[in-house]
Amino acid sequence: MDPEAVAKAFVDHYYRTFDGNRAALGGLYHDASMLTFEGDKIQGAAAIVAKLTSLPFQQCAHAISTVDCQPSGPAGGMLVFVSGSLQLAGESHTLKFSQMFHLMPTPQGSFYVLNDIFRLNYA
Amino acid sequence: MDPEAVAKAFVDHYYRTFDGNRAALGGLYHDASMLTFEGDKIQGAAAIVAKLTSLPFQQCAHAISTVDCQPSGPAGGMLVFVSGSLQLAGESHTLKFSQMFHLMPTPQGSFYVLNDIFRLNYA
Repeated sequence: MDPEAVAKAFVDHYYRTFDGNRAALGGLYHDASMLTFEGDKIQGAAAIVAKLTSLPFQQCAHAISTVDCQPSGPAGGMLVFVSGSLQLAGESHTLKFSQMFHLMPTPQGSFYVLNDIFRLNYA
Repeated sequence: MDPEAVAKAFVDHYYRTFDGNRAALGGLYHDASMLTFEGDKIQGAAAIVAKLTSLPFQQCAHAISTVDCQPSGPAGGMLVFVSGSLQLAGESHTLKFSQMFHLMPTPQGSFYVLNDIFRLNYA
């Protein structure tokens, strides 16, 4: 599977899980994983899930505009850079965002998220 | 120097160089460095400088809104995520952008840019 296809598959899976069952995102993070969400720094899968499930909205739908990826070095990681928009339930407008992920390979041949940085694009 | 201060110093230096003498950015990239600029993929310091110096504007001024950073793993790298706006000479409006850098340590105790992904935030 080429890197672009892996990145696209990850992004589809990530946001489908976020929009459908946010708590299940925990499986994508490890204890060393880091999330910076609008400047808040969180470390570890459990704390990251606690943050994501406590955001002040219940239902949401992500729409992806662009996905860029690059290999991150000899350790076999991959950087994925996403732009898109977020629609919250009951809100008519959408919020634009940019997010980056650093994916690292697992011994099982999959990837986990080592780094995750999220920012809304304020107009 | 703490990582946040390193990231901030890099960002200040990068955009000051971009706005003042774009060709000098070559010193920040190596042959293995990658740039994805609005979806165009470029590799190597020389090709990256050729791309950056051939953008269809001469003078510009970057203003930085946010800088987030995280360590990228055991190799001592650092991920830097930037949001900001770009003012082109003769244009009254600004262009919002998001950009990420993966900085890797050099034997001399400095950093070079291994990965660079740039996207304008289309409204």
